[in-house]
Amino acid sequence: MTKEDLEKLLQGVQEGKITVEEGLKMLKELPYKDIGIAKIDYHRELRKGQPEVIYCEGKTTAQIEQIISEMLKKNNNILATRANPEIYKCIQSLCKEAEYYEMARIIFIRKKEFICPKTYIAVVSAGTSDIPVAEEAAVTAELFGNHVQRIYDVGVAGLHRLLGYLDVIQNAKVIVAVAGMEGALASVLGGLVDKPVLAVPTSVGYGASFRGLSALLSMLNSCASGVAVLNIDNGFGAGYMASMINKL
Amino acid sequence: MTKEDLEKLLQGVQEGKITVEEGLKMLKELPYKDIGIAKIDYHRELRKGQPEVIYCEGKTTAQIEQIISEMLKKNNNILATRANPEIYKCIQSLCKEAEYYEMARIIFIRKKEFICPKTYIAVVSAGTSDIPVAEEAAVTAELFGNHVQRIYDVGVAGLHRLLGYLDVIQNAKVIVAVAGMEGALASVLGGLVDKPVLAVPTSVGYGASFRGLSALLSMLNSCASGVAVLNIDNGFGAGYMASMINKL
Amino acid sequence: MTKEDLEKLLQGVQEGKITVEEGLKMLKELPYKDIGIAKIDYHRELRKGQPEVIYCEGKTTAQIEQIISEMLKKNNNILATRANPEIYKCIQSLCKEAEYYEMARIIFIRKKEFICPKTYIAVVSAGTSDIPVAEEAAVTAELFGNHVQRIYDVGVAGLHRLLGYLDVIQNAKVIVAVAGMEGALASVLGGLVDKPVLAVPTSVGYGASFRGLSALLSMLNSCASGVAVLNIDNGFGAGYMASMINKL
Amino acid sequence: MTKEDLEKLLQGVQEGKITVEEGLKMLKELPYKDIGIAKIDYHRELRKGQPEVIYCEGKTTAQIEQIISEMLKKNNNILATRANPEIYKCIQSLCKEAEYYEMARIIFIRKKEFICPKTYIAVVSAGTSDIPVAEEAAVTAELFGNHVQRIYDVGVAGLHRLLGYLDVIQNAKVIVAVAGMEGALASVLGGLVDKPVLAVPTSVGYGASFRGLSALLSMLNSCASGVAVLNIDNGFGAGYMASMINKL
Amino acid sequence: MTKEDLEKLLQGVQEGKITVEEGLKMLKELPYKDIGIAKIDYHRELRKGQPEVIYCEGKTTAQIEQIISEMLKKNNNILATRANPEIYKCIQSLCKEAEYYEMARIIFIRKKEFICPKTYIAVVSAGTSDIPVAEEAAVTAELFGNHVQRIYDVGVAGLHRLLGYLDVIQNAKVIVAVAGMEGALASVLGGLVDKPVLAVPTSVGYGASFRGLSALLSMLNSCASGVAVLNIDNGFGAGYMASMINKL
Amino acid sequence: MTKEDLEKLLQGVQEGKITVEEGLKMLKELPYKDIGIAKIDYHRELRKGQPEVIYCEGKTTAQIEQIISEMLKKNNNILATRANPEIYKCIQSLCKEAEYYEMARIIFIRKKEFICPKTYIAVVSAGTSDIPVAEEAAVTAELFGNHVQRIYDVGVAGLHRLLGYLDVIQNAKVIVAVAGMEGALASVLGGLVDKPVLAVPTSVGYGASFRGLSALLSMLNSCASGVAVLNIDNGFGAGYMASMINKL
Amino acid sequence: MTKEDLEKLLQGVQEGKITVEEGLKMLKELPYKDIGIAKIDYHRELRKGQPEVIYCEGKTTAQIEQIISEMLKKNNNILATRANPEIYKCIQSLCKEAEYYEMARIIFIRKKEFICPKTYIAVVSAGTSDIPVAEEAAVTAELFGNHVQRIYDVGVAGLHRLLGYLDVIQNAKVIVAVAGMEGALASVLGGLVDKPVLAVPTSVGYGASFRGLSALLSMLNSCASGVAVLNIDNGFGAGYMASMINKL
Amino acid sequence: MTKEDLEKLLQGVQEGKITVEEGLKMLKELPYKDIGIAKIDYHRELRKGQPEVIYCEGKTTAQIEQIISEMLKKNNNILATRANPEIYKCIQSLCKEAEYYEMARIIFIRKKEFICPKTYIAVVSAGTSDIPVAEEAAVTAELFGNHVQRIYDVGVAGLHRLLGYLDVIQNAKVIVAVAGMEGALASVLGGLVDKPVLAVPTSVGYGASFRGLSALLSMLNSCASGVAVLNIDNGFGAGYMASMINKL
Repeated sequence: MTKEDLEKLLQGVQEGKITVEEGLKMLKELPYKDIGIAKIDYHRELRKGQPEVIYCEGKTTAQIEQIISEMLKKNNNILATRANPEIYKCIQSLCKEAEYYEMARIIFIRKKEFICPKTYIAVVSAGTSDIPVAEEAAVTAELFGNHVQRIYDVGVAGLHRLLGYLDVIQNAKVIVAVAGMEGALASVLGGLVDKPVLAVPTSVGYGASFRGLSALLSMLNSCASGVAVLNIDNGFGAGYMASMINKL
Repeated sequence: MTKEDLEKLLQGVQEGKITVEEGLKMLKELPYKDIGIAKIDYHRELRKGQPEVIYCEGKTTAQIEQIISEMLKKNNNILATRANPEIYKCIQSLCKEAEYYEMARIIFIRKKEFICPKTYIAVVSAGTSDIPVAEEAAVTAELFGNHVQRIYDVGVAGLHRLLGYLDVIQNAKVIVAVAGMEGALASVLGGLVDKPVLAVPTSVGYGASFRGLSALLSMLNSCASGVAVLNIDNGFGAGYMASMINKL
Repeated sequence: MTKEDLEKLLQGVQEGKITVEEGLKMLKELPYKDIGIAKIDYHRELRKGQPEVIYCEGKTTAQIEQIISEMLKKNNNILATRANPEIYKCIQSLCKEAEYYEMARIIFIRKKEFICPKTYIAVVSAGTSDIPVAEEAAVTAELFGNHVQRIYDVGVAGLHRLLGYLDVIQNAKVIVAVAGMEGALASVLGGLVDKPVLAVPTSVGYGASFRGLSALLSMLNSCASGVAVLNIDNGFGAGYMASMINKL
Repeated sequence: MTKEDLEKLLQGVQEGKITVEEGLKMLKELPYKDIGIAKIDYHRELRKGQPEVIYCEGKTTAQIEQIISEMLKKNNNILATRANPEIYKCIQSLCKEAEYYEMARIIFIRKKEFICPKTYIAVVSAGTSDIPVAEEAAVTAELFGNHVQRIYDVGVAGLHRLLGYLDVIQNAKVIVAVAGMEGALASVLGGLVDKPVLAVPTSVGYGASFRGLSALLSMLNSCASGVAVLNIDNGFGAGYMASMINKL
Repeated sequence: MTKEDLEKLLQGVQEGKITVEEGLKMLKELPYKDIGIAKIDYHRELRKGQPEVIYCEGKTTAQIEQIISEMLKKNNNILATRANPEIYKCIQSLCKEAEYYEMARIIFIRKKEFICPKTYIAVVSAGTSDIPVAEEAAVTAELFGNHVQRIYDVGVAGLHRLLGYLDVIQNAKVIVAVAGMEGALASVLGGLVDKPVLAVPTSVGYGASFRGLSALLSMLNSCASGVAVLNIDNGFGAGYMASMINKL
Repeated sequence: MTKEDLEKLLQGVQEGKITVEEGLKMLKELPYKDIGIAKIDYHRELRKGQPEVIYCEGKTTAQIEQIISEMLKKNNNILATRANPEIYKCIQSLCKEAEYYEMARIIFIRKKEFICPKTYIAVVSAGTSDIPVAEEAAVTAELFGNHVQRIYDVGVAGLHRLLGYLDVIQNAKVIVAVAGMEGALASVLGGLVDKPVLAVPTSVGYGASFRGLSALLSMLNSCASGVAVLNIDNGFGAGYMASMINKL
Repeated sequence: MTKEDLEKLLQGVQEGKITVEEGLKMLKELPYKDIGIAKIDYHRELRKGQPEVIYCEGKTTAQIEQIISEMLKKNNNILATRANPEIYKCIQSLCKEAEYYEMARIIFIRKKEFICPKTYIAVVSAGTSDIPVAEEAAVTAELFGNHVQRIYDVGVAGLHRLLGYLDVIQNAKVIVAVAGMEGALASVLGGLVDKPVLAVPTSVGYGASFRGLSALLSMLNSCASGVAVLNIDNGFGAGYMASMINKL
Repeated sequence: MTKEDLEKLLQGVQEGKITVEEGLKMLKELPYKDIGIAKIDYHRELRKGQPEVIYCEGKTTAQIEQIISEMLKKNNNILATRANPEIYKCIQSLCKEAEYYEMARIIFIRKKEFICPKTYIAVVSAGTSDIPVAEEAAVTAELFGNHVQRIYDVGVAGLHRLLGYLDVIQNAKVIVAVAGMEGALASVLGGLVDKPVLAVPTSVGYGASFRGLSALLSMLNSCASGVAVLNIDNGFGAGYMASMINKL
């Protein structure tokens, strides 16, 4: 609830346009829709001009169907993450224009066009196995209305591959660095460029990578400044935040 | 063994109503029934007026069948947690009136009615994915004889959703807060209400949630007072303890 | 902000008694006092009839002095936890009647009397080394207006010591169980009594106790129901929540 | 290589009965048989009068078959742990008299009779779900030539169940305590009896039991003396060591 | 080495203005100064228009003195973090105008003025004990040429305190959220505002906070989007990155 | 409370020799003495013929003095572990004959003689730095009435040193293996001898030894059978249990 | 990019043989081939005379096929690790001479012969279950052009088995020690031989082995010098580095 | 005990030059000297031509004095690691020529000259704070008879600093890479050079570096091949093993 919302509401009440009961009701019911299993948040959409998002992991297909059916009534763009093909099949039957980005595990329902800023986001990944997470970030950023440059498989084991793309990386407004194993890519990028680096550790690796812990700790302890870290495998979060920064 | 039990037994022995051998036997055999693979504890039922409980995880269906068959001889209410549909099918063949709460994974066999106190328990969950654990808590509390108010999907990412339900939460006698990921719901509730909050971290999340560790640590470190924590995903424990407090 | 507060405020605005600007200001300034380094929360006191609390660890003596000076203007009871003798000396010079509970590391300034419920809280500790944490719980509960029964050094290595006090523990309304090392006391108590047990793991132990982790995990995994867990060494939290339950 | 072995070998060489080359060969080849994938150790059998043991987990059925075929040539008792029914089927085709202890996951091939000491080992388990590990300990101890008393499902949540069996536990020469979850059984037993307690944490539990870590730490931090700890789920190890102590 | 640098160098060589030997030397010697114990990096300054930074922890006072003496020759602004009063005393004797920000543990030597953008950074902290880390972030951002708004002691245990400052937080271009214990502040802020939140967990807390681990995991698992995380207690890193974003 | 104790008490009550009230009192008061800060357990002494033990860490010198003063009334042997010189000085003033084993940090007060079995315990340590823990085990075992053979500094980095003492180790009735760092000594001993090995990990080491965790895990995962593990640095526990086994 | 490469390039530019544009292009495109999902690194091959390597885990079969198709154009030896039979089948259809080392999970495509040094590498494993990792090391080393001696199943539980092979181990130029569980083999070897030991912990074990953590920590804390450690189950890494050392 | 030693001994016995008793004694007493608190191992010296080493941490000054006094009788070079100035003062009084390398915390007593191979070892460190560990490695390698090139403060945050030294690093026979924080230096070096890299994580860092855990995991998970890892802060181990490889 922003200051403006409160002010407007109070003025409405003062001027008699809104009764006390109505005021209370508005405070409680306006910004979301309660469908029992979920409270759909329209607030974010209104405030941010961005798609409704639904995180599919841990929800049954039936729950997802119910939530998206409700969302569809509002005619907003809808973005579903961590969606498997079975979920896509179900959503497609609800809404034909639903698109599926398989590598990124994202379903997108386009209801409105968006205008992209001219600047772009660079999404850089260390290895081929990190691509699903990198794609989640890249596709999210694109669907939130941004241009994205992908630079994949440029891990520090072959530094010359990374150095070859330095200019495209350096010219981005913000960089998403996706790496598993030892996650050194984030530190190396942080040292080479003067743009914010959003580091996404991935669970790629084995043994003492402890499902992404190694890359996570590495990125948190980056000796280079200008690096902030997302949760392990959180491509969506990185794409979302990169979009936020790219649009500043 | 309470003081009263001991006193009664000693008096029986002193008055010659109970022989020494009988006294010893009573001390050893009275409160449970040994069926080889398990020692069924009737003590709790007698003492607490609550259902017999059986935790199904890690037991074979055959063992569960054997234990419940024995329990059925006593004509008490029986509650089985973490029960999958296969177990339910088996129990149903033993006892037709067995009910299955699928979301909560609970089987209930009702043999006696119970009287509920007028006060109620609020079960609050952060996300849709936390509902199975929340339901385990809510159904347990109901089957132990309590009124329950469910408020689901009110995580702190959309604080206005939570604030809209503040009065129903504040008027409960005790609150169960169920959340995965960063588990911030418990702290926020602890700061907003002046009732005991039983916090249940869930294993919902990924990456650095480490199967519920993140929410668990969060809840243990709550900056708000009046919050105590149950094991990860332990909806039953929260429902049980909330019932205990609601009946005080 | 409860529903009633909002209703009252909106009515005041509607009736013209409160201007829009005043309404906004009230929403922002009423419940706390900003003294730069801290925002003292009078809300809690008004709402809960309990002392102001200040946690001293991590604050400089100068900060504590400044905060308590401000608090003293309100004439409420004040309770400072994790206070060392140096802090006490400083507070005493601000306010002569400040009392120091050395074992519990608590400073108390009594400005109002409180009425205790007739029921009592049992504070049970496993070993002599756990007494500081147990005392923090016991003294907190007393200063929040409760009768407390202390039963110390009754760890499970000598079970007969614990069984000797079973009646006084069983007759409490709520039990605080304080234990380090393997923390088995909580499970044993949870199995013996039918009252809520608030378990406080302590950092007492060495080696694989990992500064309380062992007792913490033990208590979270209690095979007995009716046990909820506080943070390691969080005697204050247990005393606070026990008080809350004892007053229900 | 014991002192006696060395002495005998050196004397043989000195007396010319053994050449230097033969001496070297004996030092290298005597106590085991190299079959490529494994070096079967006959040393242990000769020295200890106990069965050959093969741990099946992590070995292919073909490897197990090859190892047991080789072992069968020596006519010793053979004990295979962590054996699933498929392995049993394969071994049975090698050797008809192979017996399968399903709950304990042990295959036994009896070639020699053994004499049991008169004293016995008590195997105590906390819950029904701990029985597979307890059985692994009990069956191992029996097959190594010991009498075993099983006391199952006597966890500390119902202390009276445990106290009822105190005499049979107290009269054992050594006690194996098997428990998951918070593992408090070991501490309680350690406090009640004056015999060595071999504690086996199990991976039974969920959430913050972290697959047995909770019980493991609990047992290591036992406030009672006379408790030593085996690896999580290591029923075999406990049965083996209990046998060793029982035969002292 | 950016594309432009390479291009210029190659052109110089092609045009004969730079010999091959000189070219090689430039590639190796230009951007840093080797003083034995350290290689001072002037590259960053030239490229970024920001102060030279030295991290004092783990360096001896003598090493710091030697490094700063060398840096002073370049007449750039110099910023030393994690500096104790003893180090300040030493630096002051090297350079009179050195300023010490005690709470932030920062020494600053001002040689050049900087122009601040009109937008500002909000630095929000949960508790009084988090102020040193918050100040490290705030002072760093200011010394890198930014306006900063400080909002301290607004942890989620008293949500109304935070809500009172919502407009000043919402109007910032980027937000630094500093919190220890359960670190819920980051999630709550992430849900309330639509600006990037840089979350800094602090080591404030005790017991199961495990020196900041609890807050760190909480922030990484934030259920709100738009939150990225710095290392525990890394106020400098947050100030640096916030400055980078504020200047975009 | 053994079966015999109960039987005797019940008979006394039956025969009228003991009143019900007396019976109750006996059940509660007999086996320990409550001195407020501690409940001294005489039960153990009576049952086990072993010294009273007091663990000094985490207790104030005043508490230790009070506990030992009370113990001295019973004329039993008293053993205080983890005692520093300051505590010794205090105890010496209470009781002149108190002896101090400095390396083992043990104080012993001898009131009764004890008879040792002819068999002995071998205490084996890996390095010079492990000697304090090894001495705690060895001195404890001696003071509980056992012969001990010490074999120190025979870690596996120089296997020939260990092999040289194989006969004295092999002829012991039970072996205590004390090692820090990687703790391989326990496995090697377990493979070489056919006696129970009580393994004590020590906190000796640095870096990834994580204060004894490395040795602890090593010993728990010993590939040799016949090894059970005590807590990190728990020399007392090993000496106590070795004594128990040696006296079987 | 070595000094020589730079020098050559600059000279080419200076002499007019290479234009500035070409120079830039060479710097960026020479050492790898971008096929979208991967950037194949020919640099390593040219520099090191060793096969191209592809790590299959985490890549789809389609990706692996695409990468190897590209690699085949260069006519180098190709080595694919962590390859399952399904991948082999696919690769075989691309290239008939592909060989599959099933135990080692390695596919090899031989295009060039290599000359082996006369010295050899000893690959030593503790147990039968460790053989897959040991084979990965051994086969890798052989395919990189080395002679290998395998000594398997010589864990420290039967030390005489290991001692029997001491001369073949001692005469190797470098030793790979592969062990799970407590990983003591590395320390024992490190103490017995004076050659570099590359220790590979395996995830073989259960319970407190925590999927190889126990062996990993053991090996890192080896009390013997001359031991360095690879990631858990990283047989390839050990074989690669052993080859590097053997060829020095 | 090598094959040759055994052969010689057996021949001596066969030829009557050595009696059986003497043979046994030789097997047990030859290679070390028992001085009670330690068993000094001369074996290593004889076998390896390298100095006697004593690790000082965890030993009292008196113990170190006693051990070195004994060592001095043999006239070998002696190297003491982790030695503080107090220990040096004590050793100097035993032996005037003892030298102290303060940064490396090493004491060296030179009794014999050694010949260095012509190849050299490169010791590379990431930051100024890592120098003590790097110096421990470098000085150890020098005192074991090797040429060492030091390249310090070339962490990946300023990659150009590292690239400037690539030729001196590439020309070494073996490389020691010392880094704390995120430890990315090891991966970057592993990718740039084709020589074995011995990686030493340091405890330099704060927060989520967890005293070196972050760098340790990073290095273990290096995406570049040819990297093996030592314990945290184990400069000695790296210097020792680098010497071993340099002398191959």
